[in-house]
Amino acid sequence: MSKPFGDLIYTPERATGEAVSKVETHTPKITAPDKVKAGEEFQVTITVGPHPNTVQHSIRKIKVYFAEEGRPFNPIHIATVELEPEYAEPKVTLTVKLKKSGTIYAVGYCNLHGLWEARKEITVE
Amino acid sequence: MSKPFGDLIYTPERATGEAVSKVETHTPKITAPDKVKAGEEFQVTITVGPHPNTVQHSIRKIKVYFAEEGRPFNPIHIATVELEPEYAEPKVTLTVKLKKSGTIYAVGYCNLHGLWEARKEITVE
Amino acid sequence: MSKPFGDLIYTPERATGEAVSKVETHTPKITAPDKVKAGEEFQVTITVGPHPNTVQHSIRKIKVYFAEEGRPFNPIHIATVELEPEYAEPKVTLTVKLKKSGTIYAVGYCNLHGLWEARKEITVE
Amino acid sequence: MSKPFGDLIYTPERATGEAVSKVETHTPKITAPDKVKAGEEFQVTITVGPHPNTVQHSIRKIKVYFAEEGRPFNPIHIATVELEPEYAEPKVTLTVKLKKSGTIYAVGYCNLHGLWEARKEITVE
Repeated sequence: MSKPFGDLIYTPERATGEAVSKVETHTPKITAPDKVKAGEEFQVTITVGPHPNTVQHSIRKIKVYFAEEGRPFNPIHIATVELEPEYAEPKVTLTVKLKKSGTIYAVGYCNLHGLWEARKEITVE
Repeated sequence: MSKPFGDLIYTPERATGEAVSKVETHTPKITAPDKVKAGEEFQVTITVGPHPNTVQHSIRKIKVYFAEEGRPFNPIHIATVELEPEYAEPKVTLTVKLKKSGTIYAVGYCNLHGLWEARKEITVE
Repeated sequence: MSKPFGDLIYTPERATGEAVSKVETHTPKITAPDKVKAGEEFQVTITVGPHPNTVQHSIRKIKVYFAEEGRPFNPIHIATVELEPEYAEPKVTLTVKLKKSGTIYAVGYCNLHGLWEARKEITVE
Repeated sequence: MSKPFGDLIYTPERATGEAVSKVETHTPKITAPDKVKAGEEFQVTITVGPHPNTVQHSIRKIKVYFAEEGRPFNPIHIATVELEPEYAEPKVTLTVKLKKSGTIYAVGYCNLHGLWEARKEITVE
């Protein structure tokens, strides 16, 4: 029996076996303020790596979602960045606005090693 | 404490509470052969709905992944289809080739009701 | 002086020099009805090729736009399909609805040979 | 007769009639070094606006391409950023590496006012 899709997304906590060796190179790092004001712009920087960046093996995409406290259904898609191998590094800064507190998720996709997730809680004052 | 991202992806089995009412309108339907030949093209049709298709509420994206048997890391991204509200319905047909057996996943994104997954095992002869 | 971006998009009419040899393998083929009813779903099939489908060289993306008659600004994005090399062939069918007559454009992207365009006029009755 | 797709992409030089009033709010602004070293990372910041950011009207996508001097076919896709209305502003920073001199293009998509282009030449030393 095949697994639910969500169970295929690696997190540092869930990585086992061979995946443990990929945690450091594949888990996105999210830099963002802990607290922001409702509706005010702030920057979210997401980086992955150090990781190879070749046509054969690279971080192809970084997706950013938000799980908003109290919203009946989550997540909300915030942004997706497609990165061309060799030319674009997995280091991006986005400009985000939130209305309510919640959790920012970054999900990176490596064409050889799958989907890797990180998250950061942000409080909206 | 926030949940792992994978736990936010709805499946018919996992939907509880208010989400139960959205299972029928949001779970992708995958039409594809049960068995295919290695490297031969076949069609995969994915539909979602009936679902509203307005700027305020629509299926914005359908993502297709594959978990290949024996591959150390999964999934493999197969295709992503971004759908413009009002103009493009969540009914798409893709042309796919596989080398090994595994599970096709379709993940639809509704801007109000989040990510919904379906899957289908395909045997490569 | 660099050219406007639009001048970089190949069409069969505009291809010159080395590009002439790529017209047949890169120009999208659009299959759609000549006439449709306002707001009724119809299918648009877009294919490119025969074309290699490897990590080193493939049709990576097909974008579909619409220029609607009488709209002050065009085009309207209809759908974008990202295709994974080796797994997804550049042969897709979308389900579209139009309100007014206009021109459907398909733009394919080959990672070695750039952006190639085709178009088809559709009359809405 | 319908126009080639490339002729639909607005540039400040080509905007006429009603489009003139949209030049300031829709033309991307590219911030990047004039000169870089081959293979060394540098940042490219792209902003659009001030522009509304609502579900009904926003900059939905920013695409970045590169036309490399001497390459027989251009452009090369560098990155695409999809921006969710209300949550993500059209202000992004990417990390890019080049091997040869050429022109960076940024193309923004507004769901009401179409595709708008800007470009910047970069010399690789």
